[in-house]
Amino acid sequence: MPERAIGVFDSGVGGLTVLKELLRQLPSEQLVYLGDTARVPYGTKSPGTVLRYALEAAAFLAQRQVKMMVVACNTASSVALDVLEDRFSLPVVGVIEPGAKKAVELTRNGKVGVIGTEGTIKSGAYTRAIQALDPAVEVYGAACPLFVPLAEEGWAEHPIARMAAEEYLAPLLEHEIDTLVLGCTHYPLLKNTLHQVLGDRVALVDSAEETGRVVAKMLGSRSLFRASVPCCPRFYVSDVPTRFERVGGAFLGEVLQGVQQVSIEAG
Amino acid sequence: MPERAIGVFDSGVGGLTVLKELLRQLPSEQLVYLGDTARVPYGTKSPGTVLRYALEAAAFLAQRQVKMMVVACNTASSVALDVLEDRFSLPVVGVIEPGAKKAVELTRNGKVGVIGTEGTIKSGAYTRAIQALDPAVEVYGAACPLFVPLAEEGWAEHPIARMAAEEYLAPLLEHEIDTLVLGCTHYPLLKNTLHQVLGDRVALVDSAEETGRVVAKMLGSRSLFRASVPCCPRFYVSDVPTRFERVGGAFLGEVLQGVQQVSIEAG
Repeated sequence: MPERAIGVFDSGVGGLTVLKELLRQLPSEQLVYLGDTARVPYGTKSPGTVLRYALEAAAFLAQRQVKMMVVACNTASSVALDVLEDRFSLPVVGVIEPGAKKAVELTRNGKVGVIGTEGTIKSGAYTRAIQALDPAVEVYGAACPLFVPLAEEGWAEHPIARMAAEEYLAPLLEHEIDTLVLGCTHYPLLKNTLHQVLGDRVALVDSAEETGRVVAKMLGSRSLFRASVPCCPRFYVSDVPTRFERVGGAFLGEVLQGVQQVSIEAG
Repeated sequence: MPERAIGVFDSGVGGLTVLKELLRQLPSEQLVYLGDTARVPYGTKSPGTVLRYALEAAAFLAQRQVKMMVVACNTASSVALDVLEDRFSLPVVGVIEPGAKKAVELTRNGKVGVIGTEGTIKSGAYTRAIQALDPAVEVYGAACPLFVPLAEEGWAEHPIARMAAEEYLAPLLEHEIDTLVLGCTHYPLLKNTLHQVLGDRVALVDSAEETGRVVAKMLGSRSLFRASVPCCPRFYVSDVPTRFERVGGAFLGEVLQGVQQVSIEAG
């Protein structure tokens, strides 16, 4: 069992920021990544539709005999985690709880902001996860639909990104948040821009980093650390790989190669 | 046959700008609209995947006994039109050729710009359609991925839209285009912003308007005009209707009601 791979899935390229952290924190693990690029994005779709897509993605990874699943997509984590845990007899790690835990640790004034897709913010998953840890923390959410196309366009540090960040973050700053959760896997690319708008007084929580730590801890507690040397990660997508390879490089921080197209629809 | 409805499909809400024109130009026709909101957008997906989705959408409309199909999506029109015409024994109208024809009529210096999704621009469909009419016309394309989220966010006239338009249109202005085709059904919402950036010397071609004219002409030439009074248009979507109803109102220019969710995946 420990020699098996860790399966990671996302709606597209965004989850590569989580994969990057897993590679950095767990270089001895074999990783398998699936991007559902034929149906990306999940962030504007209904909970029922996202759940259906997540089940199909998870089934694909389960067939590949992974020892653990990482849902590297905030929207899918916010609606599908419980069902995935029920359905597959595997440990499943999402990106919401690790980010929520870190935010509760960091906040000093008990005012936390969360930014994400429409789906993630509407689900209220971060608010529930944060307030389960500390009911006194106030949570303010803001959906930022332009951030994903800005990151994919390579405009994360363009004046347009700065202007969009000012617009989206103004209400959160009015609430005097001192901590902001980047509740979408694309957003770490915008860290510099967000920092410029927020200044030094607001701490940024990168769910990808925290998720890496939770995965490492879970592997340890279940004696699932791999002993043999891994191959490079394997990448699968549900549409032609061209765009994933081109856009994904910026998210992974290295050239993407050998991406394979697969069919994951249950039909 | 003339009493049957006209079927219109798009990946989501964008095609409502085409539907709006059909309602305006052909108030006596019954219209059926399908938005594939469970898989929107098509513009970043591969031609093969878009073709598969378009075939499923068209099959849904064919089952509803429509007399004609309008592909109210530039990306789908650019890759699927010939196959749809082959597969279904119905007249099929796309949005590319009507826009191309208008651009050739309007240009005085023979330099035409086309803006659209990544998929539409990459397909080269507008260039082929324009140069089939006049091989001497030079066509310059630019993909504008931020325009769709800007339109859906209600930010079509926001300074951010202006800045994005300046960035995207700069290379086209360097080529001294005098005509610009709005090659995506979302873009008519950005007309004012585009006009501000381009000035009076560049004519804008709205494919929706031109498509309405082509549909009217085709109904006339085939004696397919409806005689009886139509009901209000019927709307179907492949995901939960909430977001479609909310965002779509701005595209249609009136309140959207009675939208039904349907399953269109072939499985």
